[in-house]
Amino acid sequence: MALSSRASKLTTPDPSGPILSDNWHPTLNPSGYVNLGVAENYLMHASLQQHLHANLKVPTSAFTYGDFFKRSRTAIASFLTKHLNTVVPIKPEHVAVASGCTSAVEHMAWAFADPGDVILLGRPYYGAFPGDATLRTGTKLGFVDFGEDDPLGANCVEKYEERLLEARANGEKVSAVLLCHPHNPLGRCYSRDVLIDLLKFCNKYKLHLISDEIYALSIFENKIDTNPPPAPFYSVLSIDPTGLIDPAYVHCLWGMSKDFGANGLRLGAIISQHNVDLMTALAPAVLLSSVSSLSEHVFANALEDDVWVENYIKENQQKLGSYYEYIVKWAKANDIVYATGVNAGFFIWADLGRTYLKHQDSKPEDLDQAVMDALLRHKVFLASGVRFGSEKPGWFRIVFSHDMDYLNEGLGRIVAALTTPEPLKNMSNLSLQVDLDVAF
Amino acid sequence: MALSSRASKLTTPDPSGPILSDNWHPTLNPSGYVNLGVAENYLMHASLQQHLHANLKVPTSAFTYGDFFKRSRTAIASFLTKHLNTVVPIKPEHVAVASGCTSAVEHMAWAFADPGDVILLGRPYYGAFPGDATLRTGTKLGFVDFGEDDPLGANCVEKYEERLLEARANGEKVSAVLLCHPHNPLGRCYSRDVLIDLLKFCNKYKLHLISDEIYALSIFENKIDTNPPPAPFYSVLSIDPTGLIDPAYVHCLWGMSKDFGANGLRLGAIISQHNVDLMTALAPAVLLSSVSSLSEHVFANALEDDVWVENYIKENQQKLGSYYEYIVKWAKANDIVYATGVNAGFFIWADLGRTYLKHQDSKPEDLDQAVMDALLRHKVFLASGVRFGSEKPGWFRIVFSHDMDYLNEGLGRIVAALTTPEPLKNMSNLSLQVDLDVAF
Repeated sequence: MALSSRASKLTTPDPSGPILSDNWHPTLNPSGYVNLGVAENYLMHASLQQHLHANLKVPTSAFTYGDFFKRSRTAIASFLTKHLNTVVPIKPEHVAVASGCTSAVEHMAWAFADPGDVILLGRPYYGAFPGDATLRTGTKLGFVDFGEDDPLGANCVEKYEERLLEARANGEKVSAVLLCHPHNPLGRCYSRDVLIDLLKFCNKYKLHLISDEIYALSIFENKIDTNPPPAPFYSVLSIDPTGLIDPAYVHCLWGMSKDFGANGLRLGAIISQHNVDLMTALAPAVLLSSVSSLSEHVFANALEDDVWVENYIKENQQKLGSYYEYIVKWAKANDIVYATGVNAGFFIWADLGRTYLKHQDSKPEDLDQAVMDALLRHKVFLASGVRFGSEKPGWFRIVFSHDMDYLNEGLGRIVAALTTPEPLKNMSNLSLQVDLDVAF
Repeated sequence: MALSSRASKLTTPDPSGPILSDNWHPTLNPSGYVNLGVAENYLMHASLQQHLHANLKVPTSAFTYGDFFKRSRTAIASFLTKHLNTVVPIKPEHVAVASGCTSAVEHMAWAFADPGDVILLGRPYYGAFPGDATLRTGTKLGFVDFGEDDPLGANCVEKYEERLLEARANGEKVSAVLLCHPHNPLGRCYSRDVLIDLLKFCNKYKLHLISDEIYALSIFENKIDTNPPPAPFYSVLSIDPTGLIDPAYVHCLWGMSKDFGANGLRLGAIISQHNVDLMTALAPAVLLSSVSSLSEHVFANALEDDVWVENYIKENQQKLGSYYEYIVKWAKANDIVYATGVNAGFFIWADLGRTYLKHQDSKPEDLDQAVMDALLRHKVFLASGVRFGSEKPGWFRIVFSHDMDYLNEGLGRIVAALTTPEPLKNMSNLSLQVDLDVAF
């Protein structure tokens, strides 16, 4: 009632809340939903919890505004200089912290694009990017189609350029390219060569390159399906920009949510090493998404503990590799086609529609919705490709970084949903015919 | 470089950072600044710290997105229903949480005012409101002058109405009134009668009333200067709206920063009990300023611990009362005029310019800057009335909720700064001639 026009557009409740809150548990909530739809990594929770409790002595200075997060910015700078193998050491003044990368993405859109200006985003994309970048900024996204080409392949830059020229022909100003690298939902890294081509492209058109590297450390060895061969991860900050791009246009996002399995602690960082104006402008802006000093302490404690953190990362990567192998074997055993060559993240991108159709008598009008309905009937929740801007129908993202019992329960339900013929129309649960807007 | 036009306006660094980071300590940093400029309450830090450590068992669910902050929203709802004495019990779905009231204010400006629309704000105001409400929203503020009238007095509504009509005559849409109640920097409460008049005024013109009640529990008995007589605190949620206003226009902000002396933990809440559209629209928006699950746990632990929290509030209020009496005696003893009748907050609003001028041979061109320069020369930092939109020059806010040694050091420096004649021009430290933009 009497809201601004921008807020008035959002007065339809999101139906996914009740589903996400009704989380299956074998004894406490056996009738709940198994949620393999949200990108959370449970594999190292016990280790993080142990380190948190062993080290969390909160000083009273944490109750004050403090030193503008100098400790966390220093810890992040030192840690990422090593782990992103940066050309130039990251200094604390190159880092701005915010309450998660959700807000970091918004800060980037605000800083680089005025209302109506366009940021290019390739398909498929991390499903929360559109909301994060546009909801309150007035920024527009220019989605890039790749057709049958590899969205991370050598030809991808041509597609970005075509889309840029199309936007310009429409009188739109394009100001940035937003990458998720390693890629969500594809679980792959841009090759060093493609990154270099993207840097040159950005320089040619004076575009900011925003590389969201929130999965930078969640990489692993793929021992099972190496076609296309997995590209090793190179941060954009690891590439010498000399002769490629004005480095003031290169920016990296990183956070603790994915690599440290800690979405709830809300710490994201913007790293920009050669753009003083940006960091000055961000200083008052990041106060609007200020990180908790408790999260700052927990993460600084972790990042500063060299021995512990190196073991943590190594163990996490080993687990991700074996879980990936496990789910790939499950997919193959159940006739589910998935996108191969993965070496990062904790999900697979799978063509559930194809498997579903094999078990149906007729083809549904809306394949994505039909599969989603089937999944929800079987009380398993996945993120639909529709939310990721998938160019093909029927694709879903399956998150595998769960306790094995929970994962197996979910995988079993997926198979049941795909292989059980559609019930008669009048038997379907209409309350599930909702447009689920979730893509964390 | 190549920033959006909105970000480009912010490329002048804030000079206050080095001052705020250079905090005086008697042995560790004796040459630093005593900072009585930031509204932080140190009086109960030890108690909060003890409770935090005694109760903080972080479950691994804190590492996930969890239940959309249901626990903290439930705890806040129950706690504020009691302490704000609300007409209708607050339910969890009436509460949205964000990373501090800084972002809560931004959310309100975004939700109620489109770019160019006006929110009315009386002078003097909390100095961070303008940035919080306008920096990224495009919202405008309509500042309300009161001249010789009391900004919280019976006539204040007339002034709001005059300002509204002026804005309308300029073709501007006015959509809300923003109150700080109890008032920062005046340290007083709006009387119940004035609140009722404000509710009627908002209803007449279909304005949202945003009552920032972040100091709701930081009230105390004033035993020393009761003219004007302090008004008891009544939350806007404690007034039955029947016959006064459509309750969908009434909103309250509250947070842990002030009443629990914990700015660094970043938890602010929007409470709106009769506007489902608003709460629906806020659901995706507050993800952009998401609170840390650690802060959620710490505060839920505190608010749910009835015995502890009641003692905490009571002890805090007793301390605030005696510290207020202490600083008032200091002001009187040092010929410093201050705004009386205070019963809330932890600061006094003082006419330092008057005292300063008594000790100078000539009148400076810019009294505010001259006093600020004198303070900084003596290495004490205060928030200038300029940043609070003060209608009169020379007024400053002095925060008294510090450890007694620290407070006394600061008060001594203030007296020295005011009573020491201005040095010769060529002796002044020009690096201090900065426009300090701090008003937390």
